[in-house]
Amino acid sequence: MHEDGTPETTRLLAEFIVGRRIEPLPETIGQEAVRAFLNFVGCALGGARHPAVEHTLAVARAFTGGDRVSLIGHRARLGVLDAALVNCQSSSAHAFDDTHLATVVHPAGPVAAAILAQAERTPVSGIDFLTALTLGIEIACRLAAALTVPPAEGQVGWYLTGVTCPVGTAAGVAHLLGLDAERTACGLGIAASQSAGFRQTHATMCTSLIPGMASRAGYWAALLAESGVTCSARVFEGPRGFAEVFAPKAHLAHATDGLGERWEMLDNVYKPYPCGIVIHPSIDGCLEIARTPGFEASAIETVRLGVHPLCLVLCDRPDPPDAQVAQVSLQQWAAAALVRRAAGIAEGSDACVGAPEVRAVRTRVIAAPDESVGRDGAVVRVEMQDGTVHERRIEHGIGSLDRPMSDTELDAKFLAQAEMVLPAGRARELLALCRRLPELDDAGEIGRRARA
Amino acid sequence: MHEDGTPETTRLLAEFIVGRRIEPLPETIGQEAVRAFLNFVGCALGGARHPAVEHTLAVARAFTGGDRVSLIGHRARLGVLDAALVNCQSSSAHAFDDTHLATVVHPAGPVAAAILAQAERTPVSGIDFLTALTLGIEIACRLAAALTVPPAEGQVGWYLTGVTCPVGTAAGVAHLLGLDAERTACGLGIAASQSAGFRQTHATMCTSLIPGMASRAGYWAALLAESGVTCSARVFEGPRGFAEVFAPKAHLAHATDGLGERWEMLDNVYKPYPCGIVIHPSIDGCLEIARTPGFEASAIETVRLGVHPLCLVLCDRPDPPDAQVAQVSLQQWAAAALVRRAAGIAEGSDACVGAPEVRAVRTRVIAAPDESVGRDGAVVRVEMQDGTVHERRIEHGIGSLDRPMSDTELDAKFLAQAEMVLPAGRARELLALCRRLPELDDAGEIGRRARA
Repeated sequence: MHEDGTPETTRLLAEFIVGRRIEPLPETIGQEAVRAFLNFVGCALGGARHPAVEHTLAVARAFTGGDRVSLIGHRARLGVLDAALVNCQSSSAHAFDDTHLATVVHPAGPVAAAILAQAERTPVSGIDFLTALTLGIEIACRLAAALTVPPAEGQVGWYLTGVTCPVGTAAGVAHLLGLDAERTACGLGIAASQSAGFRQTHATMCTSLIPGMASRAGYWAALLAESGVTCSARVFEGPRGFAEVFAPKAHLAHATDGLGERWEMLDNVYKPYPCGIVIHPSIDGCLEIARTPGFEASAIETVRLGVHPLCLVLCDRPDPPDAQVAQVSLQQWAAAALVRRAAGIAEGSDACVGAPEVRAVRTRVIAAPDESVGRDGAVVRVEMQDGTVHERRIEHGIGSLDRPMSDTELDAKFLAQAEMVLPAGRARELLALCRRLPELDDAGEIGRRARA
Repeated sequence: MHEDGTPETTRLLAEFIVGRRIEPLPETIGQEAVRAFLNFVGCALGGARHPAVEHTLAVARAFTGGDRVSLIGHRARLGVLDAALVNCQSSSAHAFDDTHLATVVHPAGPVAAAILAQAERTPVSGIDFLTALTLGIEIACRLAAALTVPPAEGQVGWYLTGVTCPVGTAAGVAHLLGLDAERTACGLGIAASQSAGFRQTHATMCTSLIPGMASRAGYWAALLAESGVTCSARVFEGPRGFAEVFAPKAHLAHATDGLGERWEMLDNVYKPYPCGIVIHPSIDGCLEIARTPGFEASAIETVRLGVHPLCLVLCDRPDPPDAQVAQVSLQQWAAAALVRRAAGIAEGSDACVGAPEVRAVRTRVIAAPDESVGRDGAVVRVEMQDGTVHERRIEHGIGSLDRPMSDTELDAKFLAQAEMVLPAGRARELLALCRRLPELDDAGEIGRRARA
């Protein structure tokens, strides 16, 4: 407690990050960190050719400097800060990244991209790397919870990945740099001074740029703290600080209660489909129906979706003009799943968005809030022209906490994306290397092997 | 108006920026822009050796890349993005920069630093340069007004320079790059996606870092927009957008009403003292008293300051431990002015903060809110040990809108700072060059001449 009764959030977080250099992670946490990292690498390969990434990369190449490290899925190399930005943006470009369910933060990309760049610059063991990743993810998720999970009252406009992942990233890099608690606290504060981004930019290229910039911001913050730049010792809890500006009513206890005992990281899940996670249970239902023997999408009369209200707030886009908007279009994904019997990167492409048979079904989608379903649920009812009705109620979609993606499913997701830019043999080797991360002496090897 | 009745803020701002390439600025505005720029260059010279700048520069040098341009007051050169960051940070390091009174934004530094770097990269006339500067300042100030000036209801924690100056900077650079309205709007949006920073970091090195990062963020945003990165076409006014997240109740009409007719830039003033502007009227009063014939600071019994309530919210720091905190310490500056009969960079130094005779007076300062004074006013009452009382009521401090700094005063402020790093002759030449900016064919020449 500070003298005025406020919690010492900043100090507690900094000491947690520093303390973990001595105290190893529980094994289950380390295993989950491998899954998070593997999902990150796969998504970065899958997103490497996304136009948003190509445009950003063109600028970054012209202005980058310092020690160069690998870009996942590219031949080019960039300075570490810009490599963090571009690799993270790639991993986010198809909205295929991980999601901390309680807050809808996508924490692994920013942290992993920065510490991978740092690990290429200064070798680090797989175990230390996974510890840094875990600490970063944990802090990003916990700060997001402090801003939004009741009794906190949040502001729904914030793109929390941009708000809390600079801090998580700084935590991970500070851990690898070996900063002490005081310097670490400064790094967290400099990172929080770059916390930024709001949801109005969703459905534009900025959607993936913001996580990328969060990664660079956190990495930069840790480097500045190492160099001696100071920041407030109560940046999160102090007056006119992080908690005060980012939420009408924050609950900072979520950031620190049970640190090291309870892990928010276990509430982080992986997406089976490359789109807004609130759309997923509807896709599950549509895919089940589409795979019914004899089902013909061309004979659909009406598609009725009963969804959690938040799904409509974020993803009600009946007629997306392009792939970027389609990423957060409930209607596109329901239609594509019914017509194509699949929901991968191809189903979010401009080609699929513009396909007449997909558009024909899309215009027949009627979405409405259904108070009976949770955030990971949906009711899908497809009425055919001949009067037949197909209905599926999804209680917990694939990739939810109750039905997490298995290692086999994650590996398949990895390979499908890796093979977009790597030969199949190299994709499998890289997957195996990611799985062996806890035994590696030099985690940066994964970055080097992930180049195209 | 959009279909839903919200104003088209984003489009109007973008078109204003683009339109000014055809339509020249009014002459009075151009003159004020010269003053703003000259003040920026002087402050960047005065802040070039500040520890916060030295620490940041050490990291920036190791990681910078791309076309190199000048650093004001240094021999080193950096890539354009990092030069913008460091030059702006220098100009802000002593809290000696300009202030838009209605919002307490410091707009010139971020915009000027970025367009100066760009002007060195690609030559531009003095007139075009001043237009870009004006547009950037205007937009930064107007957006800040939209967030905080009634009927808007703001959130006092935001460090508005960090929030709105990325956008102002993007506006200035977009103008120089010749982007069209659509690309410009994307640049403003990408910049707003990096809007960040809160006041809890005041009194630390982050205070000057945040404007620096705002400059880099806006410059980077304009370059990304040029390259093809997209952003929302209603980033300011749309749901879950800039206005919604940065203020409990924004008033976007302040951003666009009378654009090009009424200039917020005329409400931008320059500081006579290197500290928080709300402290200034108290310094005026203390200096007047200290210069009373026969006045002896060692005989002070009590110093009573009656100040605007905001002054105490931001600057009530009775016992600052170092120069960084002293920058926003009302008590330090009142004491230093009384003891040293001056209030320049030396009076904010660690040496002056730690001087026993200054500390002795500092402990005798009693500050209280006085509802009878405005934000630019103060009542200073110094009670001597022999019972004598000196009292001054300052209605409008020097550097306020009612008593703006004259050109002569601004030139003296410039030279005092320039001579900290340049020979006197070169300082005077540089001042003359700044004054001739409207006639220059190549504005970047000023950057090259400002190197140490």
